[in-house]
Amino acid sequence: MNLDNLFKPKSMAVVGISKKNPLSPGRIIFVKNVFEMDVKVYGIHPEGGEVDGVSLYTRLDELPEIPNLLVIAISAEDTLDYVQACADLSIPACIIIGGGFAEIGSEGVKRQEKLVQIANDNAIAVLGPNCIGVYSPPLLDTIFMPTERITRPPKGTVALISQSGGVLVDQFFHKFNEINIGVSTAVSIGNRAVVDETMLLEYFSKYDKGTSNIAFYLEGFKSSRKFLELARESNDTIITYFGGLSEQGKRATKSHTASLSGNDKVLSAALKQNLIIQPRTELEMLTYLKLFDVLSHKKKPFDYNKIVNGNVAILSISGGHGVICADLLKVYNLSSVEYTEEEKQDMHQLVNPVARNIASFNNPIDLTGSAKDEDIENIIQYLSKIERIECIILLILPYTPSISFQIGRKIANRVTTDKKPLVCFIPYIQKYGLIIESLELSNIPVFHSIEEAVQAVSALKMLTRIYNIKQKK
Amino acid sequence: MNLDNLFKPKSMAVVGISKKNPLSPGRIIFVKNVFEMDVKVYGIHPEGGEVDGVSLYTRLDELPEIPNLLVIAISAEDTLDYVQACADLSIPACIIIGGGFAEIGSEGVKRQEKLVQIANDNAIAVLGPNCIGVYSPPLLDTIFMPTERITRPPKGTVALISQSGGVLVDQFFHKFNEINIGVSTAVSIGNRAVVDETMLLEYFSKYDKGTSNIAFYLEGFKSSRKFLELARESNDTIITYFGGLSEQGKRATKSHTASLSGNDKVLSAALKQNLIIQPRTELEMLTYLKLFDVLSHKKKPFDYNKIVNGNVAILSISGGHGVICADLLKVYNLSSVEYTEEEKQDMHQLVNPVARNIASFNNPIDLTGSAKDEDIENIIQYLSKIERIECIILLILPYTPSISFQIGRKIANRVTTDKKPLVCFIPYIQKYGLIIESLELSNIPVFHSIEEAVQAVSALKMLTRIYNIKQKK
Repeated sequence: MNLDNLFKPKSMAVVGISKKNPLSPGRIIFVKNVFEMDVKVYGIHPEGGEVDGVSLYTRLDELPEIPNLLVIAISAEDTLDYVQACADLSIPACIIIGGGFAEIGSEGVKRQEKLVQIANDNAIAVLGPNCIGVYSPPLLDTIFMPTERITRPPKGTVALISQSGGVLVDQFFHKFNEINIGVSTAVSIGNRAVVDETMLLEYFSKYDKGTSNIAFYLEGFKSSRKFLELARESNDTIITYFGGLSEQGKRATKSHTASLSGNDKVLSAALKQNLIIQPRTELEMLTYLKLFDVLSHKKKPFDYNKIVNGNVAILSISGGHGVICADLLKVYNLSSVEYTEEEKQDMHQLVNPVARNIASFNNPIDLTGSAKDEDIENIIQYLSKIERIECIILLILPYTPSISFQIGRKIANRVTTDKKPLVCFIPYIQKYGLIIESLELSNIPVFHSIEEAVQAVSALKMLTRIYNIKQKK
Repeated sequence: MNLDNLFKPKSMAVVGISKKNPLSPGRIIFVKNVFEMDVKVYGIHPEGGEVDGVSLYTRLDELPEIPNLLVIAISAEDTLDYVQACADLSIPACIIIGGGFAEIGSEGVKRQEKLVQIANDNAIAVLGPNCIGVYSPPLLDTIFMPTERITRPPKGTVALISQSGGVLVDQFFHKFNEINIGVSTAVSIGNRAVVDETMLLEYFSKYDKGTSNIAFYLEGFKSSRKFLELARESNDTIITYFGGLSEQGKRATKSHTASLSGNDKVLSAALKQNLIIQPRTELEMLTYLKLFDVLSHKKKPFDYNKIVNGNVAILSISGGHGVICADLLKVYNLSSVEYTEEEKQDMHQLVNPVARNIASFNNPIDLTGSAKDEDIENIIQYLSKIERIECIILLILPYTPSISFQIGRKIANRVTTDKKPLVCFIPYIQKYGLIIESLELSNIPVFHSIEEAVQAVSALKMLTRIYNIKQKK
C-alpha cells in the first residue's frame, strides 16, 4: 500500500453526491474539492447530470483516467461494492466516510472483516470507515464540515492523526487556528480497519518531508509493538494524547470506535521508554504542539536541548503572577534557582530608581508595575550569563504605562543575541498582537496563560531527555 | 470606618500628579477620573496650575469641600504627611498607591506601623499601601493602568478583592472581559495595612446590594477567625483562590506582600467547613465565577440547588468529546448515570434514521455528526424526565452542516421549559457568537472547553452542599 495515494493524489473521485440535499457529506466533499482544493476531482452519480454547475459521471469505469483515490460517502450496505470496484479498476486508495461497521456490533463487524479482506488482497490503502478523512493542503480536503464552518489551520510542521473526527476539527483545527500552530497533514482514522496509527507513524516519520512533529489522539492502540519501535527510531517528535483511560472513558470508547484502551500506568511507562511524549490534558497537548511547531523553524533563537534539570528563573512585573508561576514549578517537575546576595545587588543596580526600591530580586524577580522596557532587557541580559539558569520564564503584562509597544522586539533581539532559552507569557489580547508578533517572528515561544508557559519549559526538559538518549546511540 | 467612602465617594482628591510625566500613576488616575468617571475630582499640586487643561489646587485645605476620599500617589517618604492631613481635615478615607512599606523590610515596617496608628486613631479607611486601589463603576477608577491598555469588565454581580494588582487586572479584568463576567466592585488591597480582606468581606456581604458573589485572590489571611465566621453566615457565595501555597510560592509571597500563607491542608479544610469555595487553579476560579455570575440573574432556567450526588448525563455529537468528558468526571468527583435497555430503545426512536443507526446511547450519548437540531432537542426533553439524572452536560460542535444557527435558541427554550440543570460546551469562535448569545440570554451556563463544563457541574454540586447546610440552620 502506498499512502501517497491518500495524501498526495493527482486525481480523486467521489461517490455519494446527493442531488437533493446540498448538505450531504458526499456533496460537500465533492464541491469543496472542485472549488477550493488543487486536486483533480471527478463526481460519480448513477444518473449523471450535474450539481452546482459541475458535471457528474455515471460510473467509475467511465472516468477519463483511473483516479489515485476514491472517497466513498454512501450507506454501509453499498460501500463494499465500491471497494470491490477499486480492486477491479486498480484504484489504489479509498476513504470511507460512513459508519455502520465494527462500531455498531456483530452485523457491522462482519462487514468490516470483508472490507479488510478486499483491501489486503488488493493492496488498497483504505482509510476509515467511520471517519472524516484527510486534510492535506493545498491538495485535498475530505472533511465534510464546510470550510466556512470550521476554518482550517495554517500550513506547518505538525502531522495530526485522530481516532475522533470531532476531536480533530474542534480540539485541534479550532485551537490551532487560535494560537497559530501549523499543520502538514491531518488524518481522521475512524475505525482504522486497514490504515492504522502505526502505518501513519511510519509514513509521516519516514516519507513526509514537511512533517517534523507527529501528534496522535488515540483511544487505545490497535497494536502497540511496531508503533513503539518506530517511535523510538524516529527523527520526529512524537506526541500521543490518550482519551478513554478512566473507567468511565473506557466504557465510552468501546461503543464509539470499537477499541479498547489498556492499563494506563503500563501504557505511560511504555510511551516514556520509547521516547513518546504523553500530555495529560488537552491544554498540555496544545502547549507542546505550539512549542514544537515554533522550534521546528530553521532559525532558532536558542539551543533548546540543554534543559537537563529544569532550573528556572522567573522574571515578572507583577508579584502575584510570580507567585502563581512559582506555585506551578513543582507541579511540572521544575525547580527555581537561588541568587547570591551579590547577584541580587547587581540586579538592583540594573533597574530604574523608582522600581529598584520596591522590586524584589529573589526568584521570582518582581520588577513591579514601575518597570520600564530597559529594566527587563537588562535583567534578561544579566540572567543569561548565569550558567545554572537553564531557562527564563518571562511574565509580561503590557498594561502598565511605562512598558512600550516595542517591548516584544526588544526582548526578541535580546534573547536571540544572548541565546538563553526563554519562554514568554503575554495575555492574549488583540491590541497587543504587535508585541506577540515581534516575539513569534523571532521564534520565541509565547503563551497566554502562566500555566502554559510552565508546561512549555517542562516540554523543553522532555525534549532534552529525548535528545540525549538519541545522541548516546 | 465607613467603607462607603472608598467605594461610593461623592468627591475625591488626588495627590502626586506629575506635570512633566503624563505616564505617572497620579496623573493617569487624576485625568482618567475627570474625563471618564462620574465622581467629582480635585487635583492637588504644590504649584497649582493645570494638567491636560484641568486646573489644580495647591493644597488640600483650599478645596471647596472636604472630599470623601484622597488618593495618594507619591513617594513613601511623603505619604504619611498626607495621611496626617486626612486626619486633620477629617477626610474619612484614602488609597495609598505607592510601595516602600512593610514589603521592603525594617525601614518600611516602621513606616507602615505609623500609618496604621494614624488611621486607627482617626478612623480613616486606608486602602493599601502598595496597591492599585479601587474600580467601582461608573463612579471611580484609581487603577493606574490606562483604561485603553486594560479594558475594564462589564458591570455585574462579582466583588473582586485581590492582594495582587497584577492578578486583578490580568487574571480577572482581562479574562472577565473575554468570557463576559460582570464585576460590581474590584479592590486591590496591597499590604492591607488597615482595610483588609475581612473588613471587605463584611462590607460586600452586608452592605453592598449589587454584589452576590465575593471573590478573593489572597496569598494568606491577615487573620482568619472573623473572616471564616463572616463567610459562614453570608448570603453571598464566597470564593477564595490562594497563591503561594507551595514551598516555592511561599518564598515568593514573603518578599512580595510581606504575608505568610499557612499549611495548605489545614487551610482547605477550614475553608470548606466555613462554606467557602476554594478553586485549585486559575481556570477553576474563572469557571466558578462565570457560573455564579450567570446564576445570579433573576430569571433562572433551572433550579441549581439539586445536584446532590453529581449524577451526570453527557450528550455529545462527537464521540471523542464524549470520551474526554467521561474521563474528566472522576477528576471532578462526578459520576455518570446508566441507562436501561428500554431507555436506550426510546432514545433510538427519537433521532433521525441516518444518525440512529450509527449513534450510541450509552452514557455519553453520541448522536454523531449526522445529528440534527431536533434530535438534540428530543433527547434533552427525554433526559429531563429521568429523575436520577441531576445535570446534563451538552457538547455542541456547530461545524456539522445539519446543525443550524438556531440551535442555541432551541436548546435554551427546551431547558427553560423542562427545568433540568444543563451546562453547555460550545467552542469559542466569533462566528458562532449568535448561538452562544441565545443561550446566555436565557442564562444557560456556556463554557468553551470540555473541562470547564465539567468544572461547572462540580461547582453546582458545591453550591447544593452549601445551600443544604444553610437550609438546616
